[in-house]
Amino acid sequence: MKSDELLALLRRRGVLWPTAEIYGGAQGLYDYGPLGAALKRNIEEAWGAWFVGLSHDYYRIDPAELLPEAVVRASGHLENFTDPEVTCDRCHAAFRAETVLEKLRPEGVDGLSAAQIAEIVHAHHARCPNCGSEALSVPPPFNLMFGVEFGVTGHERAYLRPETAQSSYLAFPRMWDVGRRALPLGVAVIGKAYRNEIAPRQALFRMRAFTQAELQVFFDPEHFAVPFDRVRDEKLPVLRVPRRESGEETPEWVSAGQLASTGDLPEFYVYHLAHTYQFFRDVLGYPSDRVRLFEKSDQERAFYNRIQFDVEVNLESLSGYKELGAVHYRGDYDLSRHSEGSGKELSVTLQDGRSVRPHVLELTFGVDRNLWALADVHLTHDGDRTLWRLPPYLAPVAVGVFPLIAKAHAPYALRLTDDLAAAGLAAQYDDASSIGRRYARMDEAGTPFCVTVDGETLTEGPTRDTVTLRERDSKSQLRLATTELARHISAALRLPRPPRS
Amino acid sequence: MKSDELLALLRRRGVLWPTAEIYGGAQGLYDYGPLGAALKRNIEEAWGAWFVGLSHDYYRIDPAELLPEAVVRASGHLENFTDPEVTCDRCHAAFRAETVLEKLRPEGVDGLSAAQIAEIVHAHHARCPNCGSEALSVPPPFNLMFGVEFGVTGHERAYLRPETAQSSYLAFPRMWDVGRRALPLGVAVIGKAYRNEIAPRQALFRMRAFTQAELQVFFDPEHFAVPFDRVRDEKLPVLRVPRRESGEETPEWVSAGQLASTGDLPEFYVYHLAHTYQFFRDVLGYPSDRVRLFEKSDQERAFYNRIQFDVEVNLESLSGYKELGAVHYRGDYDLSRHSEGSGKELSVTLQDGRSVRPHVLELTFGVDRNLWALADVHLTHDGDRTLWRLPPYLAPVAVGVFPLIAKAHAPYALRLTDDLAAAGLAAQYDDASSIGRRYARMDEAGTPFCVTVDGETLTEGPTRDTVTLRERDSKSQLRLATTELARHISAALRLPRPPRS
Repeated sequence: MKSDELLALLRRRGVLWPTAEIYGGAQGLYDYGPLGAALKRNIEEAWGAWFVGLSHDYYRIDPAELLPEAVVRASGHLENFTDPEVTCDRCHAAFRAETVLEKLRPEGVDGLSAAQIAEIVHAHHARCPNCGSEALSVPPPFNLMFGVEFGVTGHERAYLRPETAQSSYLAFPRMWDVGRRALPLGVAVIGKAYRNEIAPRQALFRMRAFTQAELQVFFDPEHFAVPFDRVRDEKLPVLRVPRRESGEETPEWVSAGQLASTGDLPEFYVYHLAHTYQFFRDVLGYPSDRVRLFEKSDQERAFYNRIQFDVEVNLESLSGYKELGAVHYRGDYDLSRHSEGSGKELSVTLQDGRSVRPHVLELTFGVDRNLWALADVHLTHDGDRTLWRLPPYLAPVAVGVFPLIAKAHAPYALRLTDDLAAAGLAAQYDDASSIGRRYARMDEAGTPFCVTVDGETLTEGPTRDTVTLRERDSKSQLRLATTELARHISAALRLPRPPRS
Repeated sequence: MKSDELLALLRRRGVLWPTAEIYGGAQGLYDYGPLGAALKRNIEEAWGAWFVGLSHDYYRIDPAELLPEAVVRASGHLENFTDPEVTCDRCHAAFRAETVLEKLRPEGVDGLSAAQIAEIVHAHHARCPNCGSEALSVPPPFNLMFGVEFGVTGHERAYLRPETAQSSYLAFPRMWDVGRRALPLGVAVIGKAYRNEIAPRQALFRMRAFTQAELQVFFDPEHFAVPFDRVRDEKLPVLRVPRRESGEETPEWVSAGQLASTGDLPEFYVYHLAHTYQFFRDVLGYPSDRVRLFEKSDQERAFYNRIQFDVEVNLESLSGYKELGAVHYRGDYDLSRHSEGSGKELSVTLQDGRSVRPHVLELTFGVDRNLWALADVHLTHDGDRTLWRLPPYLAPVAVGVFPLIAKAHAPYALRLTDDLAAAGLAAQYDDASSIGRRYARMDEAGTPFCVTVDGETLTEGPTRDTVTLRERDSKSQLRLATTELARHISAALRLPRPPRS
């Protein structure tokens, strides 16, 4: 499906809609409805189970989204978290410089000053994408953070965090103190980040408020042992810089073992990259031929990232590969900045007596983007069916419960719905319109199971207290005792976890 | 425990700490560590299971926290969401007017203008609580919302929502369209709200960023049928206005049926109030003699609230009853405001042909406040044990897994931890220090179960693959097969739900 068609479908089904829709919406903000909210929670739970589950030394925390100014000054965001902007003096529209120069300068504008950008704009006679005028100006770079007055005096400022990562860096010393006082130490945050994007677009891909799931692993740069054998033979679809420079767009399949033997990628990095790939393939269910691990070059990655592979998935709705996650080796940049900014020593003393400032490996994941991608990849037309083939543990509704005839079978079906809910299953009752229409609604919502209560359920005899269980993808139907139902469905909903011990 | 002692304990155990601690903290912001984050999630899940579980027509959504200015203008927050402030011209400290006048005017300052407050301050020779000076000024009232520039032009503003409720009101027309198009329709949000409090204090009770769980039920004012018999005989600890005015502080026990028969409280209101009380007592486990349902008088409640009972719990740490939730009958105020503000008709046509602007019943709940109260009420000293008697389904860690002797039993214990995690249990491995110390750590964290892997677990014979299961409150020990463990523990973790059908 194309982006517009997909967005319209998600909106119509109440998966998501623009914030403050009745006021005309707010650019770059979306609200999740019942299906979207449940899907988003399930994605977050799946991410947590997988990545926090990677080690007994990885923990999830929940820090505040507002940060005092001193924090974002130290992290560099106050000075550098900017997006070069171009404004039109005629129609007064504002654009990202990158958008205006998209064709004239495909390599982007990273690192250029406003003056340099202005020179390029005028030399190429760039035109306003809105009105076509050449009267373009390049104002000083625009900081993407949302700032607020904090407290009553007007002297203090705070910022909505531009990434969840900063919260984890701030938490490191406290986590060290309350934990085992050993490295590695992983700190995960699933939460909101905020960016005042100049031009929000592509639905959930460039939002002004979005949810990140990020794991920061603090480790001893001299020694970060991982059970590498678990991933050694895993084949990964990598697109490395030399191959990219030769013009290739498609990845090549390289085993984790081979990748780590090239010498420039440490085992701990490849280990986490392989698990990241497995998460996208095995947990989110993206077909392996649509995923690639895209290495960023020296010029492309942030200067503090020593190694960066983006996880990209080829999306029909957005006509190409899109970044849905990444693995960054950030060195000791972050703790050094905050040590300097706060005046606190953030090195730690290890058991062997060495004092070490930990390095950081960052696994980052865009929750909203992946929610969109799960629709792009799994929401399909199959004949006249519209079918969301979500992995069952991600489905917003695990089981739909229908009375065949509303009047006769409703009380039993309602009780059954409650029993299934009490067993921890997301069960939803539906008695509106024909059974076919109800199946169709559940198919579109990705519901893996539907059960129908009918006359036989209520009649004395061998079928007493049995229902028809219908499976979404195969459409197979099974007659099952209601006492078996919760166990049968729960078995299909178990979250995948990485093997650990 | 006193507030300071409790906060210190929670901080030391990594339940929570001030945001940006290494920068000296940020007033009114807290980060939740591993235990706090898990407890908070569990409270939210329990609230959702209970309140969204009240009806098949109640749904949970997840809307954005930023709202365009037009929304908060229509809701009245831009004009009226203020807190009268008093500043000291000598020491330049700022205070809530209510704090400065606490003793001089116990009835508070609601509804007074800045000029009227200034008159009272000067007539009473009020003094600065900080430096004692009488040189106090009363500036124009201070709006509690955090506002941001939204977009690049500088012409648009957005606000961090001051309450989650507004998001639900905005969602109503879309929820109507995607749903059954029938009333009642419940919309629940669990999420952040933000207030630039003049004087954040009392740890989690007056925060600048906090989590609310709120259910807005839109209903037909002429007909809101509830299965009242379910609560008719429930005795409720109410403190009504006349009793309060006679000087009483303690509630009296009145059945829901009696309460609804007084004539001024409709059955649907008492029904939801009774379920709210049950949640506090049965799900969160507050002792019934520490809970009261505190009716607000005409003068005390917001003008748009027709009926309001606060749920208050008597907290040792804060020396008295504190509001932890409330039930508001808000009439049609909210939809009327947004209908006017947006120019959209927010009335709906019911199946019987009537056009109705729904009324709103609001159930509100402070997640952070209740997290604090769960510590206040359940975290106790028992002889030399420090013990957090959390209801098992709320406990951050469901089961601690210990090898009796780290070297010998670690591999088995690690595998067992993974197996329990795979069964969906929050399992935590611990091999540091003596078994006694490990029990003590788990007791303090509220962990209901601990299992110990020992020599017998690994030795061929009848105890092969059995472990010792120790229960937190009774300290009873049980020898159990590891294959039985997940089922045994899961049974104790089932979330309470209201009976429904």
